[in-house]
Amino acid sequence: MSDTERLLAANQHFYRVFAAGDYDALDRLVARTHPVACVHPGWRPIVGRDEVMASWRAIFDHGAPRVACVDPQPMMLASLGLVLCLERLDGGYLAASNAFVIEADDWRLVHHHAGPAPAASVVAPAGGTVH
Amino acid sequence: MSDTERLLAANQHFYRVFAAGDYDALDRLVARTHPVACVHPGWRPIVGRDEVMASWRAIFDHGAPRVACVDPQPMMLASLGLVLCLERLDGGYLAASNAFVIEADDWRLVHHHAGPAPAASVVAPAGGTVH
Repeated sequence: MSDTERLLAANQHFYRVFAAGDYDALDRLVARTHPVACVHPGWRPIVGRDEVMASWRAIFDHGAPRVACVDPQPMMLASLGLVLCLERLDGGYLAASNAFVIEADDWRLVHHHAGPAPAASVVAPAGGTVH
Repeated sequence: MSDTERLLAANQHFYRVFAAGDYDALDRLVARTHPVACVHPGWRPIVGRDEVMASWRAIFDHGAPRVACVDPQPMMLASLGLVLCLERLDGGYLAASNAFVIEADDWRLVHHHAGPAPAASVVAPAGGTVH
């Protein structure tokens, strides 16, 4: 697989783990030697691996949402891999930015930012998909 | 200045430009040799420099918002600089992730993602400021 294919696979793995509420699998996916951060919808930015993992624990404790990744768009930014996508949830859609770095030869999650987006049926103001 | 200080200065410059609605200054700040993307609040992800700049043109055409950056938190992720912050607006707060890369010896904006956040007076679920 190319780096981009592996990046998209890591992003898909993130959403499988997210939808399953699998804390241990997420703990393995989140980077350990790079800084880690997160912005959940309606939350303040969270910085620090322990704080980010505590936020996921709180989310999973309330029941993992039925979430699926739609229309992932990968970008390689120097040594960082960024995936933009929509998250389809029962109540609508979120737009997400997920950033990954290579650690131990695998893409690891360093940043996740999600917030409200229009329904997928709404035409994007600009831009489109790359695959 | 250290790389981190220059990163924070670039982030502050972004918000001065944003609040001024200065399209030409933003055009100079946005990266040219790296991929560029953006997620405005409530919009679908936008990928591509031309599409991102068109989105800023549309925002500025409606009048630049009174926006100020609050509590910026810099992170160095390999060769990428990420700043998480709150954006104070007349109607409340947004949480933003701004990513920069070095081009021509300066930090250039490659990604901006903003979405709703609680008021700054609300205690963060976790994490805090680093300066």
